[in-house]
Amino acid sequence: MERKPRIVILGAGYGGMVTASRLQKANAHRNAEITLVNKHNYHYQTTWLHEPAAGTLHHDRTRMLIDSVIDTNKINFIKDDVTSIDREQKKVQLANRELEYDYLVIGLGSIPETFGIPGVYEHAFSIRSVNSVRLIREHIEYMFANYNNEEEKTEDYLTFVVAGAGFTGMEFLGELTERIPALCQEYDIDREKVKVYSIEAAPTALPGFDDELVEYGVSLLESRGVEFKISTPIKEVREDGVLLDNGEEIKSQTVVWTTGVRGNPIVEEAGFETMRGRVKVEDDLRAPGHDDVFIIGDCALIINEETNRPYPPTAQIAIQQANVLAENLQAILSGKDELKSLEPDIKGTVASLGGKEAIGVVGSKKLFGTQASAMKKVIDNRYLYILGGVPLVFKKGKLNFFS
Amino acid sequence: MERKPRIVILGAGYGGMVTASRLQKANAHRNAEITLVNKHNYHYQTTWLHEPAAGTLHHDRTRMLIDSVIDTNKINFIKDDVTSIDREQKKVQLANRELEYDYLVIGLGSIPETFGIPGVYEHAFSIRSVNSVRLIREHIEYMFANYNNEEEKTEDYLTFVVAGAGFTGMEFLGELTERIPALCQEYDIDREKVKVYSIEAAPTALPGFDDELVEYGVSLLESRGVEFKISTPIKEVREDGVLLDNGEEIKSQTVVWTTGVRGNPIVEEAGFETMRGRVKVEDDLRAPGHDDVFIIGDCALIINEETNRPYPPTAQIAIQQANVLAENLQAILSGKDELKSLEPDIKGTVASLGGKEAIGVVGSKKLFGTQASAMKKVIDNRYLYILGGVPLVFKKGKLNFFS
Repeated sequence: MERKPRIVILGAGYGGMVTASRLQKANAHRNAEITLVNKHNYHYQTTWLHEPAAGTLHHDRTRMLIDSVIDTNKINFIKDDVTSIDREQKKVQLANRELEYDYLVIGLGSIPETFGIPGVYEHAFSIRSVNSVRLIREHIEYMFANYNNEEEKTEDYLTFVVAGAGFTGMEFLGELTERIPALCQEYDIDREKVKVYSIEAAPTALPGFDDELVEYGVSLLESRGVEFKISTPIKEVREDGVLLDNGEEIKSQTVVWTTGVRGNPIVEEAGFETMRGRVKVEDDLRAPGHDDVFIIGDCALIINEETNRPYPPTAQIAIQQANVLAENLQAILSGKDELKSLEPDIKGTVASLGGKEAIGVVGSKKLFGTQASAMKKVIDNRYLYILGGVPLVFKKGKLNFFS
Repeated sequence: MERKPRIVILGAGYGGMVTASRLQKANAHRNAEITLVNKHNYHYQTTWLHEPAAGTLHHDRTRMLIDSVIDTNKINFIKDDVTSIDREQKKVQLANRELEYDYLVIGLGSIPETFGIPGVYEHAFSIRSVNSVRLIREHIEYMFANYNNEEEKTEDYLTFVVAGAGFTGMEFLGELTERIPALCQEYDIDREKVKVYSIEAAPTALPGFDDELVEYGVSLLESRGVEFKISTPIKEVREDGVLLDNGEEIKSQTVVWTTGVRGNPIVEEAGFETMRGRVKVEDDLRAPGHDDVFIIGDCALIINEETNRPYPPTAQIAIQQANVLAENLQAILSGKDELKSLEPDIKGTVASLGGKEAIGVVGSKKLFGTQASAMKKVIDNRYLYILGGVPLVFKKGKLNFFS
């Protein structure tokens, strides 16, 4: 009997997880040996992580055990760290073993983009994993707990800097400002003592977003006490705060870095040509010159032909890629030559701002307030439905539309 | 009209709070101007603090607003820090004002006893106030949250050292070991990775306690993973752990210091003769040579005539002192010369060990397990009853006798 082709999927983020789930539903395991590799035994919804980071949602609500969605009788699951990829030998090196592949799917996600600003990795937090956001939540609480134990009150315990007023930064500010009143009560601290800064190098918060909605979001966060510093690049992150390009220093024990991401460096180290760590993939999601390697999610670069600029790496586009990729892998397994092309279809974008507040565009319609907030929950639940149907929506979904 | 005598009570711990409450019930404010000074606007039950320190009880359960128990129309309450006492001028200096007194009650509590061991104040935590235990709880959680974010796993994040296996140390170990399984689950950590040490210089845990009960308590805590190092003095507390006299180092980010207390240094600074910061008071609780100064609680030293050794400073004895003191102050206000003597009556001692476990002696009877645990709750509730009657027991009491 001929050996089945081996498909190895690296990473169980949005892209890897939906690919595996689609292949499983199509019973692709009958024609291939499919292996999913991930560093944790759980998958998490990256786009929800600003909530557990601020402590407004428990992190367990943002993750699920991989084997609760993936049938490991059909798809092998290996919990391990990917350390390198050898394209010539068609092998993947994991921390504890080696895997050979016939077809490789790279969905290894991203790391924070520092733009070369020193001190980010040493002194700033980032919203990137269950581990990292659990640490942010605890760090914030620890700062509040410390304050009243100091003989000389150090205000920088109560000063919070969010670097970057993009999507994640604004969403985190929304949750953080929603949580601060409860933290003040828990630790006997006056609300006035707490300072929250949003620092953005670009001339506006949420660059590229509708002006009216940006104004709504900024005003809302200002009303909750956020001080925006727009057109203000950061020069350095230090142990005791940030130094701005304009020479100003903000003393803070808590700098959260949300200025975007770059592709996982393993991709570049494997020899692929990258831009900000991302590979400009073919329409069928293959890496240029590599018929056996597909790249999706934050590691893939897709150009928006209307604007001639890359699409921002989002969950929405990763899921669309995974759908096309799953079809293309099945086509290959069936011996077909013709592969499908990705046609990105951005249905809309909604940024939550804490509580019942959000801003967004769906189709050509602008949304804000409770309407946008409800739409955000629909989007979050829709993803759970894609992965695990109605039961997963009931188990992990956001069903509190009116609270 | 003749001026009423001014009674100033410094500190709203067990002693000061019960004194004020007794005077209020006796309507002593008709004959005196009574002022209670405390650094917080709340009173807390020090003997419960090991629970919020470990995170097994919320700190709000261990405190009450002073004006919820004291009628401030009858007794003035000043929230301020006491900085010094001038016995000659009969004045008390507060951070923000000065007070004159005719009769002074000193109930200013204690500070940790370090026995001159270096590093305690710099690197160890202590179970002494709502602020300090809230910090311990958050610090512990922060250590757990940090662990999985480290590339090189540092085991000292998960190593907890409790210095002193006296009453507070054992009670804290009881709560901590009860909480650790939940912390392991919350932060995805194997229970086996967590180490808890109890380090005691004396040749036994709980010196002076019944041998059989000590054995019960030690075995119980060992079964929950505590490693006891008895007859093991600590030489130094360092930023990264403790150095023992025997040369051994234990690396830990969390050292909790529970080796007993000494009286508030303000008392010694005021010129009173002290032993470990405590003043050996007369039988009527006056400071020797000072008819107008009464000292109670952790600042007072009372000799047990049976053993010729001081009574350990406990809530029980502070409350008994406060009862006698309130009577003596009323006697003075009524112009009586004869004051009452304190006759300590130790009814029993129970140490909680977390969950449904405790050990204790009540009268001549030894108790352990659920029976001792229920008795501990009776003792805790009894204090609330003394202060605020049945309503306070219902509001703040421990009514879960069977859970």
